[in-house]
Amino acid sequence: MKKIIDAVDDVVVDALRGMSLAHPDTLRVDLDHRLVLRAQPKDDGKVAIISGGGSGHEPLHGGFVGHGMLDAACAGEVFTSPVPDQMTAAIAAVDRGAGVLQIVKNYTGDVMNFEMAAELADAESGIAVRSVITNDDVAVEDSTFTAGRRGVGGTVLVEKIAGAAAEEGLDLEAVTAVAERVNAGARSMGVALTSATVPANGKPSFELGEDEVEIGIGIHGEPGRRREKLAPAKDLARTMLEPILAELPGEGPVLLFVNGLGGTPLLELYILAADAHEILAEAGIEVSRHLVGNFITSLDMAGASLTLLRLDEELTRWWDAPVSTPALRKGI
Amino acid sequence: MKKIIDAVDDVVVDALRGMSLAHPDTLRVDLDHRLVLRAQPKDDGKVAIISGGGSGHEPLHGGFVGHGMLDAACAGEVFTSPVPDQMTAAIAAVDRGAGVLQIVKNYTGDVMNFEMAAELADAESGIAVRSVITNDDVAVEDSTFTAGRRGVGGTVLVEKIAGAAAEEGLDLEAVTAVAERVNAGARSMGVALTSATVPANGKPSFELGEDEVEIGIGIHGEPGRRREKLAPAKDLARTMLEPILAELPGEGPVLLFVNGLGGTPLLELYILAADAHEILAEAGIEVSRHLVGNFITSLDMAGASLTLLRLDEELTRWWDAPVSTPALRKGI
Repeated sequence: MKKIIDAVDDVVVDALRGMSLAHPDTLRVDLDHRLVLRAQPKDDGKVAIISGGGSGHEPLHGGFVGHGMLDAACAGEVFTSPVPDQMTAAIAAVDRGAGVLQIVKNYTGDVMNFEMAAELADAESGIAVRSVITNDDVAVEDSTFTAGRRGVGGTVLVEKIAGAAAEEGLDLEAVTAVAERVNAGARSMGVALTSATVPANGKPSFELGEDEVEIGIGIHGEPGRRREKLAPAKDLARTMLEPILAELPGEGPVLLFVNGLGGTPLLELYILAADAHEILAEAGIEVSRHLVGNFITSLDMAGASLTLLRLDEELTRWWDAPVSTPALRKGI
Repeated sequence: MKKIIDAVDDVVVDALRGMSLAHPDTLRVDLDHRLVLRAQPKDDGKVAIISGGGSGHEPLHGGFVGHGMLDAACAGEVFTSPVPDQMTAAIAAVDRGAGVLQIVKNYTGDVMNFEMAAELADAESGIAVRSVITNDDVAVEDSTFTAGRRGVGGTVLVEKIAGAAAEEGLDLEAVTAVAERVNAGARSMGVALTSATVPANGKPSFELGEDEVEIGIGIHGEPGRRREKLAPAKDLARTMLEPILAELPGEGPVLLFVNGLGGTPLLELYILAADAHEILAEAGIEVSRHLVGNFITSLDMAGASLTLLRLDEELTRWWDAPVSTPALRKGI
């Protein structure tokens, strides 16, 4: 295993230390609870939003903490859910009297631990907590760590758009409804060209042949739908877009999110974006917003995912709203 | 070779199409000349800045086009200099009557082609063109494609800071002097854990053993100083910082730039940043500004580079100045 790390057991805390040093204007870190928090807390009376999950998907979630997006992120061990104590500490730290929304990717451990945290927070401090579970991955119905569909790229869009709605001053029920609406309108699928290597395992999580890709990969290397021979980018784009489009609700323009899984160069992500755009144009679908880059990764996995989100005027306005986080920044 | 591409010969143009689709508010693309240009040209009377070089180092340079940084970037084939016609087209497109600065990494082909372009632009249109050659890599004196030292991470800092000075309204001689000052105050070194694979070659450019790293790697895979057994991140940081510090001029605080070479996860870059910060603190050096991420890459190469830049009040102000490009954005 070749990685730029010190001790395998310390990768999460060591990386959090680096994050806090790199972004002092935006973030602060609670190393005891493994939390990333805003340097400047949100105004009183606004709904706070937390998320979190296993580490190894950076910049998700810590890189999305800041004005217009998350108030805190809870970092679990690599590919492992954070524990309820982390979320209750985060909830207590970020609540501004208007309650807290938890954005949770649909993995069994995460769902259970965030749910327990919500109950604890309510019982201990009376803070109102709501949770939205993201499950945008169309690849498979149940998976290694999941009952139902996995939460993947759509999570980033939920965090951005719900974050804007919270910043605008919507109340807890309304912000929760916005997050649910984004999740309901988002569909994703990914392909892997290589496996990731988890530091504690020291070897790739699975093997792929020299000319094989895994269609419908999960962000922890969970199996997808099938393996195929590597095809040109445009064929890969079509392979992902067909099942996405078959299930995409509604009508009108979409946001196209081309996400790198960690080991794929930006050059290739832009090629995939051009291909996806062309396929959508041929299908008569207008892409009115784009996001291209490494936003929800799987350590060093080579591959990419596509997410479509159906937009309306309101979602577009929140998508365009100012955001200032280490990984996503605009209008500020 | 596993890559998300369509035709090997079209990777640069295909990626440029994707860039223009992904960033319509910031960029436009001239596909004939393979240029990335600002969507909104700079004000009349301000110095324009162009850069460019071989593709495969994304986001460098096209991702740095926008307010506060570059006015245009010329994209060569992968790891191959752009041709003078591209630069003359860029110069003609971006000149606002105050002349044009070219920022050129010190590789023989780039230096020759940008020089020829400057002469052509002067002869054909009378546009004043100056060039600054970046050569911040302390690893080796001459290299595969270079007489003298290679231009690497420092180039990003030159583009940001000279871009801010140009936006502030400094004249051509003054902006050129700022760029030279940044290059003179910057020192870099990189390590590779794996080789990159150039699409046209179809196989890794070099082989490294399962436990080996190349110390002092170039961004095209040019050999460094030596090969070593992979060590903990803190030892790698020290191996890079010692020769950097031995040559870093001046005194006072520094900017620490931790750059990923393409295939290394952000988690590891933050670990390296924490280690580098600690080593510098032990040496009594204050890190007053940070940049951590993939900014000058080598396709899918796993590895990282460190760059230090000695800061003063003026350089710090230009570093902090608003910038709005696809890859670097703050204060806007």
